[in-house]
Amino acid sequence: MTGRLAVIGLGPGDVRYLTPEADAELAAAQSLYGYGPYLDRAPARASQSRHASDNREEAARAAAALREAAAGARVAVVSGGDPGVFAMASAVCEEIESGPDSWRSLDVVVVPGVTAMLAVAAKIGAPLGHDFCALSLSDNLKPWEVIERRLDAAAGAGFVIALYNPISRSRPWQFGAAIDRLRRHLPASTPVVFGRAVGRGDEHVDVVTLDRAGATEADMATLVIVGSPATRVIRREGRAPLVYTPRTSVEVSA
Amino acid sequence: MTGRLAVIGLGPGDVRYLTPEADAELAAAQSLYGYGPYLDRAPARASQSRHASDNREEAARAAAALREAAAGARVAVVSGGDPGVFAMASAVCEEIESGPDSWRSLDVVVVPGVTAMLAVAAKIGAPLGHDFCALSLSDNLKPWEVIERRLDAAAGAGFVIALYNPISRSRPWQFGAAIDRLRRHLPASTPVVFGRAVGRGDEHVDVVTLDRAGATEADMATLVIVGSPATRVIRREGRAPLVYTPRTSVEVSA
Repeated sequence: MTGRLAVIGLGPGDVRYLTPEADAELAAAQSLYGYGPYLDRAPARASQSRHASDNREEAARAAAALREAAAGARVAVVSGGDPGVFAMASAVCEEIESGPDSWRSLDVVVVPGVTAMLAVAAKIGAPLGHDFCALSLSDNLKPWEVIERRLDAAAGAGFVIALYNPISRSRPWQFGAAIDRLRRHLPASTPVVFGRAVGRGDEHVDVVTLDRAGATEADMATLVIVGSPATRVIRREGRAPLVYTPRTSVEVSA
Repeated sequence: MTGRLAVIGLGPGDVRYLTPEADAELAAAQSLYGYGPYLDRAPARASQSRHASDNREEAARAAAALREAAAGARVAVVSGGDPGVFAMASAVCEEIESGPDSWRSLDVVVVPGVTAMLAVAAKIGAPLGHDFCALSLSDNLKPWEVIERRLDAAAGAGFVIALYNPISRSRPWQFGAAIDRLRRHLPASTPVVFGRAVGRGDEHVDVVTLDRAGATEADMATLVIVGSPATRVIRREGRAPLVYTPRTSVEVSA
């Protein structure tokens, strides 16, 4: 069997973030699978077939890519950011585990990328400069009670919290509920960073305090970072503030 | 003032992981600062001055780079992986906050990179495929009791845990103590991934179960990922196993 499946992270936004390894894997693929807007970011190459699908069809996309690789093709599945963070690498592994035995003998590689929280953090300073966690607010695949428990645990122990998938048309109230939950643990002055479309032409990064953070500031393209009690804001005249978490952060909630 | 300070993430290991943005910032710098082995990774360029320092001298290095930028130079500070994750971006922000007012008006940019946990995860599948946290085991800058509390909170709430700085010559017992602590919360069968020197010629990735994880497998160049109760291992004949955390992970400790 000569097929190969590469699960490739494109990084956020444009090709400034595309690693040489990811570029080489894209170039070697005969067939690309992915959510349409991500496929559009992969440099165009003749003789490659492209299979766009909706962003909710991850399992079906992974299975289709595995079938083509098992038939001998060099196949790539693309993700924005890093494919291992709330993205396609897990979906591919799920399909391999539940699929035909032959899929286990396939050559499968995962190519890492710059995930959204790192790009947003870089734009504003170093809010992830100390212990932090990454949490998806989507309750499509887990109960809301589990998300609440994780918010409580992370905020109570002094982790900075990166929130992926904060809101969508079908999940309108979850982000507001998460912020309310975090207010139980964190000071009103805690910095909250909203990073929208970072790495793209329409990128926008905003910093507010937890008592003023509202659901209207987030959409599907937003990554939110909620500071810990140790996170600090440096005001700068004529420049955007810097938000960072010191390397010595020891504060935890009572 | 025309100076500029770029804090640049090189990614793990070799230039396969160096983003075009990071490469461009390196090329534009007149002066590079960093831990020696990281500086050695930056492509050589004539007429650039290089200032290597020990990996414990982060504050002094940041201050020296800021002084040169404030004098009008284009300066780069390099980090392995991502500069915002247990690396130089926080040290630079700390110095800006405590330094002279003129440092606040400097043009400071942070260039993100692929951090170690993403590279290790990619090598073995998708262990960070669901909610996870990143925790430094170094108690040089925070009390051990804070680390224990964060281990308890993260493991108890079902987060996968990436452990940075697991061990060093001056911190010989901390990793073993952390593993013992995690055994209170997690099943003996929980997968533990040791990723050493990922992205370099001598890279090595190993998977064991939590009951067999030992401090002898970690060193200063190792990043450890401890699964959640939901993390799975796919055995493959003739190939390394795949370790992944399903997108539907809802298990938390009792």
